[in-house]
Amino acid sequence: MNAIKRSGVLFVVSGPSGSGKSTLCRDLMKKPDLPFGLAVSHTTRAIRPREVDGIDYHFLSKEDFERNLARGLYLEYALVHGNYYGTPQTAVDAFLSQSKHGILEIDVQGGLQVKAKKPDTVLIFVCPPRFSILEARLKSRATDSEEVIARRIHNAIDEIKKIPSYDYLIINDDYDLALKELESILYAEQNRISRLNPENLYDTMQLP
Amino acid sequence: MNAIKRSGVLFVVSGPSGSGKSTLCRDLMKKPDLPFGLAVSHTTRAIRPREVDGIDYHFLSKEDFERNLARGLYLEYALVHGNYYGTPQTAVDAFLSQSKHGILEIDVQGGLQVKAKKPDTVLIFVCPPRFSILEARLKSRATDSEEVIARRIHNAIDEIKKIPSYDYLIINDDYDLALKELESILYAEQNRISRLNPENLYDTMQLP
Repeated sequence: MNAIKRSGVLFVVSGPSGSGKSTLCRDLMKKPDLPFGLAVSHTTRAIRPREVDGIDYHFLSKEDFERNLARGLYLEYALVHGNYYGTPQTAVDAFLSQSKHGILEIDVQGGLQVKAKKPDTVLIFVCPPRFSILEARLKSRATDSEEVIARRIHNAIDEIKKIPSYDYLIINDDYDLALKELESILYAEQNRISRLNPENLYDTMQLP
Repeated sequence: MNAIKRSGVLFVVSGPSGSGKSTLCRDLMKKPDLPFGLAVSHTTRAIRPREVDGIDYHFLSKEDFERNLARGLYLEYALVHGNYYGTPQTAVDAFLSQSKHGILEIDVQGGLQVKAKKPDTVLIFVCPPRFSILEARLKSRATDSEEVIARRIHNAIDEIKKIPSYDYLIINDDYDLALKELESILYAEQNRISRLNPENLYDTMQLP
């Protein structure tokens, strides 16, 4: 055997809208040295122009989604504006067992669902250094109604208050530093001894 | 207040002689973005030419060291070839409270002593990818007697078997990757939410 067998690590990245978490996750996944797996989510919302079934999402009927839900097929799910979104557990397990990591960009409630089912999951929270920055970012989105903005601000406060149930905090002030911190958490977590099998380690090292 | 108050993190780096841990620690401490504090160790061994008391070590008599030991002044200590070496707890606490990190390069027994006294300590183990590499490195040190080499090999096996009691493993195969992994563990650990005070965080964020 040539290398120590490591299982993939599942990371959840959460944070209020406007925190910059999506940009961070996108830039992280461009880095060549970390192997990532992808799980295509299920949704019951209508397919949009240019979306491809099975690539952007698996598009399901509400009845099919609820049947899957009843059978415990989802690692986490959410009902957003009357549409279901869910991460199929088998798809995640498939890439983790191939030593690939996964990043789920979901809300705190979803993150805690995942942690309950898979305690090895690493929960990362991204937020700006001042609440006022978040407020300003949300208000500057000209397309959103005042009602939508007020709800987002309310949700942001709710999520921030749940930070103590997460594992890591990234304060997205200096973007390059925030990206370095996110990458560092991934490198560190894949080197955690609690994720290794000592017998496999000693075999691989050819310990006398 | 401008920034979130983080306390310093104490890291212990262990690994058999020949693992390359000293070079890794030295190169890590050259990086400009991580604030490190230093605790000058106490020792009872004789001062060597070019060493300075209070800089290289605090040089103590055996009686003084044992008096300190009895008073619980050391975070960890070891007796090596009849000489005591110890890390004074107050010196470490002083820089941790100033948000500076510390690295103690000590053996596994010392690392476990520190973890017992300070459970927040992060234990990192460095080892080569194959035991045979370690053996070859130890044997190539022409100045060591066969007896010394045999003892070092025996000690290395002992220490490697204690890996499961450590937090992180760095396999020093590709040196640049090993250094990146060590740095990543420091960045990740200083972002752990369990090390933050949530009230201080919310004050700093000016959460409404």
